[in-house]
Amino acid sequence: MLRYTIPATTANLGPGFDTLGLAINIYSEFQVTSAEKDVFYIHDWQDNLLSIDKSDNLLNKSLLEFADYYQLTLPSIEIREKLKVPLARGMGSSAAAILGGLTAGAIATGILPAKDDFVEMAVKLEGHPDNVLPALFGGLIINYSDQERIFYEKIEIDPELNFILVIPDFELKTSELREILPKNVDYSTVLFNMSRVALLVKSFLTKDWQLLENAMQDKLHQPFRSAKIPGFNKIIATAYAAGARGAALSGAGPTILAITDKNPEKIAGAMCATCLDYGIKAEYLIAKADNQGLYNQLEELLK
Amino acid sequence: MLRYTIPATTANLGPGFDTLGLAINIYSEFQVTSAEKDVFYIHDWQDNLLSIDKSDNLLNKSLLEFADYYQLTLPSIEIREKLKVPLARGMGSSAAAILGGLTAGAIATGILPAKDDFVEMAVKLEGHPDNVLPALFGGLIINYSDQERIFYEKIEIDPELNFILVIPDFELKTSELREILPKNVDYSTVLFNMSRVALLVKSFLTKDWQLLENAMQDKLHQPFRSAKIPGFNKIIATAYAAGARGAALSGAGPTILAITDKNPEKIAGAMCATCLDYGIKAEYLIAKADNQGLYNQLEELLK
Repeated sequence: MLRYTIPATTANLGPGFDTLGLAINIYSEFQVTSAEKDVFYIHDWQDNLLSIDKSDNLLNKSLLEFADYYQLTLPSIEIREKLKVPLARGMGSSAAAILGGLTAGAIATGILPAKDDFVEMAVKLEGHPDNVLPALFGGLIINYSDQERIFYEKIEIDPELNFILVIPDFELKTSELREILPKNVDYSTVLFNMSRVALLVKSFLTKDWQLLENAMQDKLHQPFRSAKIPGFNKIIATAYAAGARGAALSGAGPTILAITDKNPEKIAGAMCATCLDYGIKAEYLIAKADNQGLYNQLEELLK
Repeated sequence: MLRYTIPATTANLGPGFDTLGLAINIYSEFQVTSAEKDVFYIHDWQDNLLSIDKSDNLLNKSLLEFADYYQLTLPSIEIREKLKVPLARGMGSSAAAILGGLTAGAIATGILPAKDDFVEMAVKLEGHPDNVLPALFGGLIINYSDQERIFYEKIEIDPELNFILVIPDFELKTSELREILPKNVDYSTVLFNMSRVALLVKSFLTKDWQLLENAMQDKLHQPFRSAKIPGFNKIIATAYAAGARGAALSGAGPTILAITDKNPEKIAGAMCATCLDYGIKAEYLIAKADNQGLYNQLEELLK
């Protein structure tokens, strides 16, 4: 039996819609064992067994993609997946399932995919690279592409920072959330986000946390998507009032991210209380960045 | 008599349209003397006397703005301005004149404007902050704004880097070049530029020059404006073939910027030769970044 873990992620980081994503040290757990036939035990973050069959789940789709990519037949395996983040809340649960399935394929066959090949398979399955790349390589990942392929650049994140994730008890589907967005934006919106992206990269690289409040602002997706979350602006204001350095949607929401170097419990509690004022039950997680990612583990496992 | 110098700039740096500008160590020179009546001697970069009257020039407009801002009458002064960059080529000659005039006002009155006040006056005169801010504070400046005011963040640039400016012998007016641009852009264009801005900031802060080739790409203005420069893509390709780390339009053009840590003369010569292949006579300048700017000097002068 081989075990591995996959970090959760917070993508669309601040102004970095589809561009910046970050891995956090909340790890979904996987076990892979050889078996007589394929069996997938998928437990959600509250330990409920979601599925034991292989129909239409991302683990299986990812295994099939692996087999297809390398043009081979996979031996039967048992996978146990224990999610540590909720589904469809903007914390990378899909990325975890996809990377978990691809890694199971690698373990079952003994093939260690080159990094670029792993990225190609994962992005094909996920559609967008800003969740899978940080989960794969850790840290903050800038993804960019030309007409042919995807590239990425990693920035390690200081362990001093806490990432607070306030998780409302309702789901938002990313696919529907894409349809809310306009097709085009004007130059002033572009300049707004570009300048904040520059600030955000400077903030993380120079550890200047005072920049984060401006650096985490966004006009590309948050104004449209946050309308689905009652009291959103008030929850963000509460985070700042309680001492947060930066705050924004996590992924496509509804999870709300706050960043702080101090008093994360106090900030998280205040945000959840404001959620309740608007009739939203919310839980919170407090994490640090994960600067390792999955790929390093896979190299160790297949050595 | 008091003297000061103002660095030239290369704005719209790579993907940073209206957002990123850089000061370079090519300095226009100013002298201010008390006089019986206002006289402005403005010499261009080839030492031709352009003007000695005060009608409709930026020096005088800037002096009037200074007087208006502080609600006072200025004493008469003589200003001698010696430009070291050509006019209307994308190297910040307007910013130099504006800052030169405001500084003359400060000297004439003994008033040292606070940084934010200086920025407010300069941006009001220039319209866009990406030339005046680097000339004022040095380095690479990220400018950003909310509905009320302009903010900026400085990144010091490594002296190892050379900035090559290849200057064609024709002018392009920024005002006309703005009209070429579309009103809106699609999300893929935004993501393209945002990711490159992130790379560019990372490149300068971590001194990873290999990133510059991707980091200097742009889709917001260069594709439209470079169409006014015959052979533009070939000139850029020549720069890379000769060893440049990055290359793009300087400002709104027609000057073309290349960045390199090695062999700047070789790269500049190759670029100018390619210009000639397309019938463009071009000169070149080779500069380092200026990390000081004007404001420090003004503080010294008025101490």
